[in-house]
Amino acid sequence: MHTPTQTMASTLLFLFLTATTAVASPNIIHLLKPHSGSAGHKHSNLNCLSWRLAVETNNLRKWTQVPQACEDYVGHYMLGKQYRQDCDLVAAEAYEYAKALNLTGDGKDVWVFDIDETTLSNLPYYARDTVAFGAIPFNSTAFNAWVVEATAPAIPGSLKLYKNLLKLGLKIVFLTGSEDIYMEARVKNLKAVGYTTWEKLIMKGAGEASGVVYKSKKRKELEEGGYRIRGNMGDQWSDLLGSNAGDRTFKVPDPMYYIG
Amino acid sequence: MHTPTQTMASTLLFLFLTATTAVASPNIIHLLKPHSGSAGHKHSNLNCLSWRLAVETNNLRKWTQVPQACEDYVGHYMLGKQYRQDCDLVAAEAYEYAKALNLTGDGKDVWVFDIDETTLSNLPYYARDTVAFGAIPFNSTAFNAWVVEATAPAIPGSLKLYKNLLKLGLKIVFLTGSEDIYMEARVKNLKAVGYTTWEKLIMKGAGEASGVVYKSKKRKELEEGGYRIRGNMGDQWSDLLGSNAGDRTFKVPDPMYYIG
Repeated sequence: MHTPTQTMASTLLFLFLTATTAVASPNIIHLLKPHSGSAGHKHSNLNCLSWRLAVETNNLRKWTQVPQACEDYVGHYMLGKQYRQDCDLVAAEAYEYAKALNLTGDGKDVWVFDIDETTLSNLPYYARDTVAFGAIPFNSTAFNAWVVEATAPAIPGSLKLYKNLLKLGLKIVFLTGSEDIYMEARVKNLKAVGYTTWEKLIMKGAGEASGVVYKSKKRKELEEGGYRIRGNMGDQWSDLLGSNAGDRTFKVPDPMYYIG
Repeated sequence: MHTPTQTMASTLLFLFLTATTAVASPNIIHLLKPHSGSAGHKHSNLNCLSWRLAVETNNLRKWTQVPQACEDYVGHYMLGKQYRQDCDLVAAEAYEYAKALNLTGDGKDVWVFDIDETTLSNLPYYARDTVAFGAIPFNSTAFNAWVVEATAPAIPGSLKLYKNLLKLGLKIVFLTGSEDIYMEARVKNLKAVGYTTWEKLIMKGAGEASGVVYKSKKRKELEEGGYRIRGNMGDQWSDLLGSNAGDRTFKVPDPMYYIG
């Protein structure tokens, strides 16, 4: 159940994510997390800009949570306009690439999208006081409850790209590490925010491998099925590395969690 | 021949790159390039932070020069402390990784370093008024003349890493797209700044392929020769992608030029 503060925060976040020019006030972080500053690891020498760049370039791997010292930095980044503009530029570049593709028209040219932090945003969840933008260890029970709510907003740049790719004649494949027990919630969530059609929605079965092994296997099956992966977009390097990665890959930002 | 302004600027840059805590004044850019602001493309809507992130994550490819609108941004980044700290964090992470390696002691465990913008910095050249941090098209004649001077400073984080890797017992391989006609100058430059020993220094022969094809071929030859590439560090994704990439790769920042 939501506290009133969480509900207000979610509403603010939703407004932020759907408005074109809105910039969230940095103070929202303190609103959500009034105890910030009382934890023990605030005075690290870690340069959080360097940390984020190292995350985005896959120099840092297998990290399990955002460093305490960078909680506020990551929060400000995620709620501010920079994250949104970073996503927009990746989407714009992807569209420039896609426009120049020579599509065959046989319905086998596909674009692979990851879901979480690629097409749907879990930022309303990650901004919670109990999650702290990934600076508190991952709680699968709480996260799965959030997934079932099916209220994640679209990432605006990715939604626009999705619509433009459909117009170009590409087929869409959603390939996610979400488990297939959440199929109904994910379908409801995708459709509610504008991802209304797709060629395939591939979710992980219970007991399947995860990360780069899982994604490579599913992409290999796609290509063995006659599909050509012309583009592949994800927030994790494990979406983009491995076999059958696609003709070109696009990395969208995600400084909140790591999946190997 | 250097103008007095260029000489002074080179001296300032050298001091900056060798001092531990110095932060170059942003004004140095205007000192070097007093005509900044008179060009025609200053009022782009391009978000230069997003552009740099897209470059570093390999989302933008085959770009030929820094956008005019981002010349000052790239200059401030390269001359300021953020670039240095970004490099330091990558080097620190690489050392953490290397320390945990189980080395065999047979002399076949190697670390591959690219040279330009990875171990040596061409920033004194790129800061010139006639180069503008890569916002002016590449001039191979002028750049090659700079290479022959053999006065490029070390990138401090990489030099420290190099020394620490040697202490761990790794052998060093420098693998560069520089042509072998510059062998004498590169050797002189590397030794002058502290890279005093190596297992191999591989430079490109006249007429050889370039970029990812060249680097993959040379790494394949290394591994066929019995070497194990335990780590591989470069400023270009073409240093790190392709075959025989190494057990782990490290991308150091370079927003000034692209090699495919």
